[in-house]
This record gives sequence, structure tokens and C-alpha cells, in this order.
Amino acid sequence: MPDFNENTVDDGKAISRAVIKRLPRYYRYLGDLLNENVDRISSSELSARMHVTASQIRQDLNNFGGFGQQGYGYNVEYLHTEIGKILCLNREHRMIILGAGNLGQAIANYQGFKRRGFILAGVFDVRPSQKGKDVAGVPVRMMDELPDFLSQNPVDIAILTMPEEHAQHAADTVIASGVKAIWNFAHLDLVVPRDVVVENVHLSESLMTLSYNLGKLGR
Amino acid sequence: MPDFNENTVDDGKAISRAVIKRLPRYYRYLGDLLNENVDRISSSELSARMHVTASQIRQDLNNFGGFGQQGYGYNVEYLHTEIGKILCLNREHRMIILGAGNLGQAIANYQGFKRRGFILAGVFDVRPSQKGKDVAGVPVRMMDELPDFLSQNPVDIAILTMPEEHAQHAADTVIASGVKAIWNFAHLDLVVPRDVVVENVHLSESLMTLSYNLGKLGR
Repeated sequence: MPDFNENTVDDGKAISRAVIKRLPRYYRYLGDLLNENVDRISSSELSARMHVTASQIRQDLNNFGGFGQQGYGYNVEYLHTEIGKILCLNREHRMIILGAGNLGQAIANYQGFKRRGFILAGVFDVRPSQKGKDVAGVPVRMMDELPDFLSQNPVDIAILTMPEEHAQHAADTVIASGVKAIWNFAHLDLVVPRDVVVENVHLSESLMTLSYNLGKLGR
Repeated sequence: MPDFNENTVDDGKAISRAVIKRLPRYYRYLGDLLNENVDRISSSELSARMHVTASQIRQDLNNFGGFGQQGYGYNVEYLHTEIGKILCLNREHRMIILGAGNLGQAIANYQGFKRRGFILAGVFDVRPSQKGKDVAGVPVRMMDELPDFLSQNPVDIAILTMPEEHAQHAADTVIASGVKAIWNFAHLDLVVPRDVVVENVHLSESLMTLSYNLGKLGR
């Protein structure tokens, strides 16, 4: 196996947002290849699978010092691991879900997250009827227990799957306890300090984009 | 009220994908303003609410012939309606959900969709235990009933909330029956004909983006 040590990622180098956005997709395809016991792959083979040009792939991966080698292709496991590191998947993330409805349960039960080190540490809801209910092996706690819980348990990511009217207050609560990352499914844009990162999943906006594209077909 | 007739949208004009992607967010904010009984708003007020520059707002909305008027601002209801038309929200969409698990149920129960004309026409699953179960007022049918159902019921959008190993087959089935739009939550990229539109919600990729941004905070 070639020695890649001199090609490790230079954190000081700015990588464009567009490239970063494509990394999770590379990571997914490389994971599929690993599951199929594929050791190495050329940029043209990867290109055919991903429906991206080979030149785009080479350009993207060159951002990280270039993991490929002429005539050899990419070492799948190495590339998967390195991209995983860039995405910080080589460390454990402890998550809490705020809102134990269907969406919260769907996320709690997705096995892929646990496999990648995203650990469900707690589930919270405002509805007394939900108290103590088992969600993916974790008992539902009441929202008013949240500050105490956070003071005793390290949490990296708060997932907001509650109705939008409670979401900002919930965000304020977890931020006050030092949580720095919010995965927001509520239909609003949260106001947060600069040192907190938010990733939004606005489902209704995704559906409207689909509706737009469907409408365009008929034009 | 000013006459906007000469400013209606020119469908022949190409609107950039970036602008289109922002429209659902404008639509959401304008809907909130309507709920607050706000009749009109200046680009600077809208800018402050949306955390987007006023110049960006003027540029974006100018793409549609410009709905604003100097010294008057934007007519909220008019703009909301016009953007709704561009997003094809002025027509009804009939949807089916394939996969009656937590995620399928979460989508089925989201009231906002129905309010915008997205009608749930059917819910399907492969698990016999789910047969006949009520999901948002619709009985769960078995997947093998799908072709018959599609031959008798017009469906615009198929929502794939099933495990990824069944998703391509399900997509092929609905496409064979003439469905032109797929909202895909399964963790794969579907292969579809050119005249079919797909909007992906890859939750694990969204979570990886959050993980990346969280990691960047600490660097």
C-alpha cells in the first residue's frame, strides 16, 4: 500500500463549501464499496457509479492532498477513513432529541447513526403522556428535566423535532448549557450565537422545490 | 393598490437555481407576515427579519419582474400568492407515501402540507402487520396493491420513506404508472428517466454536514 502520510489534510487550507457539501455523498458511496469488499477504485469507475464526472472527482479529492495514485486508483478504505475524519466521524457525538413524536422516533431508530458514532443520550418531550416511554432504548424525559440533564451529561448535538412554537426556547435552553450544534427540523430559522452551528432540515421547503420542478416539467 | 399586471412572471426567462432554492424561504416568511396581518413590507424590513441583505431581496424578487414599488414596499399577500404560483402551490398535488414507519407517519401527519394543497391519497407498506392501520386518516395498503391503486387514482408525488433496499424497485413501479415526481428519503440515489424529478432528503448527509461544522468550531 502506498504511503499517504505526506498527503494528509492541511486544516489550514480553505476548502470550498461546495466541496464540503459533496463529501457526505462520497463517504456514502465509499462505504457501499467497502461493504462490497472493493479495495480500490479508479476515478472513472467512481464517476460511473456516482454520475459525477471523473474530472470533478479528481478535483474534489485533490483538495485533500489527493489520495489517488496514477494506475492504482483510490484506496477505498483509506479514502473512506480520511473523509470520515474530515467530517469528524472519527469521534463520538452524543445527541439528544427534543420532541418524541413520529419524526423524533424515526431519527432515534435510524441504525445508521449509531454505527457512525452518533449516540442517543436522551429524548425529551413536553407531553406528560410520553413520560418514561421507550424510544430506541432511551426513556422519554420531560422538557423541564432538560437543564438538570445537561448539567450532568455531556451533549454535542441537540435535535429539534418539536413544533416550531417551542423550538427557539428549546434552542436557547440547550445553548445556555453549552451545546454547540443544533439539527433543526422545526419550520423556522433559529436565532443563535455565532459559536453555535445549526443545520436545518426544512421539509416543507424541500417539498416546494419538488413541486416547482414538477411544474417546470409540464411547461 | 398598484397595478402589477405588467410585471407578471415571464416563464420563458431562465431563473437561476440559487434563486429558486431561496423562494420557499421567502414563501414561508411572507406566510408568517400574512398570519400577523401585515399588508406590506419594505425590502429593508424583510431583510432584517430574514437576515438577508435588502439588496439580495430586491435582486431575487426582480427576477420575477419586481413586485415592489418605491416608497410602498412589497404587497405581502400579492407576493405570497405570486411566489406560490411559481412554486406551483396554486394547484393540488396528490401524494402517496411508500413506507408507513415513523418517518412516513411524521410526513403524513404534518398539517402544513394539506394546507398547501398536498393531499395524502394513499399509504403503502410491505409489512402485513401494518395493513389497514390508520395513518392520518388513510388506511395502510400493501405494496402489491400499488399498481392497481395507481391505475385507478391519479398521483403526482410518491414519497419514499422505506428502507433503501426496496426504494429503487418502488420508484420503478410508480414511474411505470406515470408518476413524475419522487420525494426520496431513502439513503441512495435513484436512477430515473429524464422526465421524472427527484428531490432527495438524505438525513445522514445533513447530520454529517453538522458534524463537520461542529468540528470546524473547535479548530
